[in-house]
Order: sequence, then C-alpha cells, then structure tokens
Amino acid sequence: MHRAQLLAWAPVLFQAAWVLRERGLLRELIARVAQGASVDELATATDTSPYGVTVLLEAGLATDLVVQQEGRFRPTALAYLVERDPMTRANMNFVQDVCYRAMGHLGEAIASGKPAGLAELGPWSTVYAGLAELGEPARTSWLEFDHFYSDDSFPLVLPQVFSSRPARVLDVGGNTGKFALACLGYDPDVRITVADLPGQLESCRREVEQAGDGRRVSYHPVDLLALDAALPAGHDVIWMSQFLCCFSEVEVVHILRLARSVMGPATRLLIMDNFWDRQQTRAAEVVLQAASLYFTCVANGNSRLYDSGTLRRCVERAGLEIVDERHGVGLGHSLLECRGAPGAATGAAPGGR
Amino acid sequence: MHRAQLLAWAPVLFQAAWVLRERGLLRELIARVAQGASVDELATATDTSPYGVTVLLEAGLATDLVVQQEGRFRPTALAYLVERDPMTRANMNFVQDVCYRAMGHLGEAIASGKPAGLAELGPWSTVYAGLAELGEPARTSWLEFDHFYSDDSFPLVLPQVFSSRPARVLDVGGNTGKFALACLGYDPDVRITVADLPGQLESCRREVEQAGDGRRVSYHPVDLLALDAALPAGHDVIWMSQFLCCFSEVEVVHILRLARSVMGPATRLLIMDNFWDRQQTRAAEVVLQAASLYFTCVANGNSRLYDSGTLRRCVERAGLEIVDERHGVGLGHSLLECRGAPGAATGAAPGGR
Repeated sequence: MHRAQLLAWAPVLFQAAWVLRERGLLRELIARVAQGASVDELATATDTSPYGVTVLLEAGLATDLVVQQEGRFRPTALAYLVERDPMTRANMNFVQDVCYRAMGHLGEAIASGKPAGLAELGPWSTVYAGLAELGEPARTSWLEFDHFYSDDSFPLVLPQVFSSRPARVLDVGGNTGKFALACLGYDPDVRITVADLPGQLESCRREVEQAGDGRRVSYHPVDLLALDAALPAGHDVIWMSQFLCCFSEVEVVHILRLARSVMGPATRLLIMDNFWDRQQTRAAEVVLQAASLYFTCVANGNSRLYDSGTLRRCVERAGLEIVDERHGVGLGHSLLECRGAPGAATGAAPGGR
Repeated sequence: MHRAQLLAWAPVLFQAAWVLRERGLLRELIARVAQGASVDELATATDTSPYGVTVLLEAGLATDLVVQQEGRFRPTALAYLVERDPMTRANMNFVQDVCYRAMGHLGEAIASGKPAGLAELGPWSTVYAGLAELGEPARTSWLEFDHFYSDDSFPLVLPQVFSSRPARVLDVGGNTGKFALACLGYDPDVRITVADLPGQLESCRREVEQAGDGRRVSYHPVDLLALDAALPAGHDVIWMSQFLCCFSEVEVVHILRLARSVMGPATRLLIMDNFWDRQQTRAAEVVLQAASLYFTCVANGNSRLYDSGTLRRCVERAGLEIVDERHGVGLGHSLLECRGAPGAATGAAPGGR
C-alpha cells in the first residue's frame, strides 16, 4: 500500500524533488549534514519562504530524500544522488524538460501509434525532424541525455571495430559525427562513410570538418524508410550505434536487410545498443524500461529500447547471424557482431517493411 | 541508485501505470493470473497494439506492477491495488486530472506563494473560487478525492459532538452541507448554523433543503479572511472539519481567534483534520505529505496538511487549549476538542492576520 501511494503521487513527488534540487535546498542540506538544518536556516540560505521549505521537505520525507529529527532535517543517500550523480541529474532533466508535459498524452500515443506528446514541444511529426529547432531547456536536456548514454563507450569498442583492420567503415545513422571522428582519431588511414537523413548530414559535416580530417569522410544522404532506400556497398565494417532503437521492429528488419544486401562474406555488421535485459543493475534496467515510453510518446510513436531477444529475432529475420556478443560495455551497452547467415538470401526481401 | 532512477522517471512510470489501468490491461492481467498473459493475448483483449502492450508492460516491470516469466506476464499485489483499491484509484485520478499538468509549475508556486499551477485548470485565483466551474474530468476527480477523505468519519465522531447535548452547532466552512445534514439526522432538535463564503452557502442551502429539515439550519455568509470578519455567537459547539488545512498558519490563528471571541466558558470547539504525523501507516503519511503540494500549487499557494504540532501551536496562539484529542478516526482523521484557555484574552488580537 505504501508503494501504491508512492506510485499514485509519483508526479507530485518528482516535482518536489526537482524543486528541492533547483532551489538549492539539497545543496544546503548536504552542506549542513553534520548538524542538520532547520526550516528557517534553509529558508534564509535559499531565499525561499519557510512555508515553501516546509512543504518541500515534507514531500522529501515521503520520498526518503530527507530525514527529520527534532525539527532538523538531514539528507539521505538518495538526496546525494539526486543532487550530485550525473546520470540521475541527466535523467531528471530529460524527464522534466522533454517528457513531463508530453507524457500526459501517453494514452493517446498508445491508441494512435503517433508520438502524441511531441506537440507539447513543437509542431513536428517526429522528434528527429524537430531536433534542430527544439527550444530550451528541452534541447540542452535532450542532448545531455543522449550523449550521456553514448559518448563514453566509443573508446571501449574501437579496438574490436578495428580488429580486422577495416579500410572503409560505413556509419549508419551517424548523427553528429562523433563516431566518425573517433574512428578518424583511432586509425590514420580509415575512410568513413556516414549515412543519415540529408538534414542531419549537414550538421555532421560541419562537426567533422571542424574537428577532424574531413577528406577521409564521405556522406550518403538517405531516408532508410523509403521503399527505394539503399546503402552504399564496398565497406568492411557497417556500424549502427544507438540507432535501431529509433525504429519499430518491422523497420529494424527492413534496415538490417538493406545492410545485408551490401554485405559480402567478410563484411562485419556491428550493432551497439542498450538492452534492458542485459544490464548489470536494476537501476539501469529501470531507466531503459521507462525510457522506451519517451520513444512511444515523444520521439516517433513506434520504437523502443529493445530486449536482446527481440533484436536477435530481427537480426535473424534479416538473413544475418550474431557471431559475437559483448554486454556490459561502458554504461550498459551491448556490442553485437553479425555476418550474413550462410544460405540466407541476400537483398531486401519483399514485404520487409 | 535504483530508487534514484525510479524517482527520476516517476512521472513517466505513473503515466504508464495509468494507461495500464485505463486501457484495461491490469483488469485482463488479473483475469488471467493463473496462467499468465502473453503480449498478443492482452493486445487482443484490450484492443491495443502489441507494441503498445509491450512498452506498457515493460514500464510495469520497472514499477513492479507485473512480473514476467517465459514471455507471460502476471500482476503483482501492487497491480491489484492500482486496479481495485478505492483509495489508490481516487489518488491516481486526482493526481492525473487535477494535479499533473499543474505540478509542472511547482517551482513558480514556491517562488511566488501563489497556486501557479491552477492556470492549467482555469482562470481563478484559488481553486475554491473555481470549483463550481471546474471542467471534467477534473471536477469529478476533485470531488471524489475530497469526499473519500471526509465522508466516512462523520458517523464515527457524532457521538462525541453530541455528548454535551448541544442545542446549537456552528459549522465553520460547511461546504456542501454534509456535516449539517449528518447532524440533523443524528439529533431531532439540534439547530445548525453554517458559516461559509456566500457563493458556497447557496449550493449548501440547495443540498440541505433537498435532503433534510431546512427549517433547523441557518446560514452565515462570511469571508473569514476579511479584516472585519465575525462569527455568530450563541453556539454550544463550533465545528471545523478539514477546513484549517485550506489556510496558512497566520490565517489559521486568525480564524481560531474569531472562534475564540464568540466562545463562552462552556463552548466546545471541535477540529477534525488529518495530521501526517498521526497516521497509522506509512502509506497514509506519504499521501498527506504529497497532497500538501496540491495546496501549494493548485488550491491556494499557502496552506498545507499540517502536522499535529503545528496545529497545536496555532490553537495555543489563539488563546485556546486542547482538552481532548483522538487520532486514527476513520481514514486517519484526528479530532481535537478545544476550550478557551483560562486567563487568555478573548477577542481577535491585533496583528492576528
């Protein structure tokens, strides 16, 4: 019953935790952890009314952010995480600035298959179409969340990417060019092709030419969901990082078949993604299970953060097989290495989308 | 860290639980508890896409609403509460329909002392001014929440109210007249005076004249926060039920002084309210601690569900003393019986508001 009420009041308790953080109350509680802090001390230190401090602290008692003893409040371990842990901060900012109002439309999104909450952020059909125009603070929170879950793992996987000494790497869904730049820095000879939507490639090109050796990068503009979409042939490694989670299962199979159709016997397809069933902590599992609803309600209406079993089935339906898998890379990433399955037909099969 | 992520994603997980309930997924899970339910079975039974069922169930795994085994999902005890427990349902409906969007303005409400979230519901300065015009489903959810926490306890306290055989009872903040009607039914001779805002008294009079002996009820229109406000004299019992939580501490003292000024030595003041520090379960405590923010952000910007120590200090500052107290009445109510304190000045003291 206690947990049922915490769930029933969850949005209210989230907002209280947010304001406790944003008004500096958690910071001041932590600064006074030895002696504890009174309502009046916190009110003065944070320029908040004693009434405001009181209701926020009492909500903090409900969520175990603070404990009270003889009128003095102290922060719990949870308060330190909310105030200081970079992952918790990135998650809270993302939920507040990108998801909060949008999630009020979750029922509509489930019913329609459209990201019905996106209208709270702007007049776009998917979040990808609107990223460049996203207002603040949503834009900053979106980018910090996105980068938080991807940047760190590139250095950890580059040795495996380059273990076969690839001359050409195709980065499908290259986004802002971070992986392309990491490759340029890692190998002085490799040539990269970045495939993405035309609009996205522009900002990618700017980033690459500012920071790296632009002559070794070429660009392949493509809408992979178009019926006549194609990927360029002639690459030793095809790379897809945190990309397939942006597509429905049917679309994932379609995209993997496009890749399969340009793969020779030695071509390696490397997929890096977060699978909620392959996490080392319940905390990481919970984040991925919850974050899927961002895709449902805000991003595109039909994709999710997959479990590894679902993605394996998609790989196999596309005529590929997983020849190697690593889990627990960086912040809970998995790296799947795929090859064309022996005997499987190449070329996008009819009905693939 | 697990709890930090549950808090960070709390609004998203709340919305998932809500849609699981509203689309009938919890109901169908409970109906299939013996054998478990697959995604496809639930999709068919609730006319929801398999994708929608999948993301909702995976969010349900994060909140422990469901468990999964070999592709079949079963409801947990928490799911039964969310689906069936009347208190949990009333709380979730109230949070969704009245509080959710409003709570996005909590920081502003804390900074300004105004119910900044109320603008999401209508153009009123306090929720009380707008109650009659509140749209659906907010109105129904508000009333169900309000009544859920008050109706049940009246029969339990009427014997104490009438233990002194009062001829006249003054109901301060009589609202819809429920307590007045309960008194008329309990005692065939008692006369009731209901004091409330003029607008509120109209609907109270309608209710009373439809359901009870209207000739025994009189009405005292008053804005208790006006500087020249007064209560009528000549009553044996003064009653305030779930009323003081609608006012700031300074206002509570002011109102109690107005009552004190019309109390003789034998007049009994009875206060019924919910104090979060006097609850028998952590669940009840959490609800009250969270619900205070409804007053902060939606209702009026400056009141809260008090702890018993704060209300005791207000009583004493008004020249009253608590002569009897009962806690744990009905759904966590407390009943305080007060008399004029010996030697305390009568009459509203200057600076009382």
